[in-house]
Amino acid sequence: MNYPSKLIEDAVKELAKLPGIGKKTALRLSLHLLKQDASFSQNLAQAISQMRSGVQYCTTCHAIADKPICKVCSNTSRDNSLVCLVAEIGDLLAIENTAQYRGLYHVLGGLISPINGIGPSELNILSLLKRLAESPVEEIILALPATMEGDTTAYYITRKLQDAGSTVRISTIARGIAVGSELEYTDEVTLGRSIISRVVL
Amino acid sequence: MNYPSKLIEDAVKELAKLPGIGKKTALRLSLHLLKQDASFSQNLAQAISQMRSGVQYCTTCHAIADKPICKVCSNTSRDNSLVCLVAEIGDLLAIENTAQYRGLYHVLGGLISPINGIGPSELNILSLLKRLAESPVEEIILALPATMEGDTTAYYITRKLQDAGSTVRISTIARGIAVGSELEYTDEVTLGRSIISRVVL
Repeated sequence: MNYPSKLIEDAVKELAKLPGIGKKTALRLSLHLLKQDASFSQNLAQAISQMRSGVQYCTTCHAIADKPICKVCSNTSRDNSLVCLVAEIGDLLAIENTAQYRGLYHVLGGLISPINGIGPSELNILSLLKRLAESPVEEIILALPATMEGDTTAYYITRKLQDAGSTVRISTIARGIAVGSELEYTDEVTLGRSIISRVVL
Repeated sequence: MNYPSKLIEDAVKELAKLPGIGKKTALRLSLHLLKQDASFSQNLAQAISQMRSGVQYCTTCHAIADKPICKVCSNTSRDNSLVCLVAEIGDLLAIENTAQYRGLYHVLGGLISPINGIGPSELNILSLLKRLAESPVEEIILALPATMEGDTTAYYITRKLQDAGSTVRISTIARGIAVGSELEYTDEVTLGRSIISRVVL
């Protein structure tokens, strides 16, 4: 593609680095920005730049925060006997959005993945063990994806806790057929698991 | 949605104003930016901000340029007896990308649309008439969309040129079945038009 202006080319190049945005979409977005008021682009640029430089991470649970301790950890009305373990901050936000969980969190910052060179030391696992040693909880809920990486990470953490002599209850989020979806169209693995993990009424 | 940080909330709000980006995608993009190096966000913010404040528009054809006269208008090897009329800069870039056209352009900056309150005076029509009066051309190619607004704009410009006593040849881009597509799956209007505008071999 031959760009009419170096400035547009730069903007397209940077926008196209974002996930799910190709060169065509990046060009469409750039032309859209040019059609809008100048304040639109300035506000967008400022918001992006300020977010990246200003966001802090909670020193306890590693979630995003505006202060050294995040909103959830500093909220005394939350149940501090429960810790939900998630891989990414996006997972935490998704669970928070359900308004069904009132405990605390711990963000691992990824999953153990030897293929991608991510070992336990790259994740916030040591800080979890330290945190649990300092302030024990009753239950840890593993809310990790049902992938090989998720299972490996869950197994590693379970073993580490057992090795440390912890007697904390470890649970995992329920897997089964999504609410509102048809049995007929559910994939075999999910349907199979949902029969094995059936719940007594 | 309850955001963990005001800074993220601001970034999501600004990103979600872009066309085709909803709140969920905006959040995903924001979390992606936070996972990358700080320079990634700074470069993106800078590219957006500099593009909007630095881009100029060609004083002849109204296309995007780095200088008062764009690359196409200042290129002496282009055929200056041809002017292709397009609604938006994106259309110009699409035609340039084909590498099939060696003439000049004129960007209208939109289409006549009474419903959206866009009249002829909001578009670069007067400057087109002035440009043609100063340096006459042999042919004007209308590369406008096949919509009511496109047809209205084409009709208005054709009438204006006739009223001004211009004898310039006016043509429009060919409409028909896309190269490589099946007759069977082409919509009736396109297929009908392609039979009426059949080309003698």
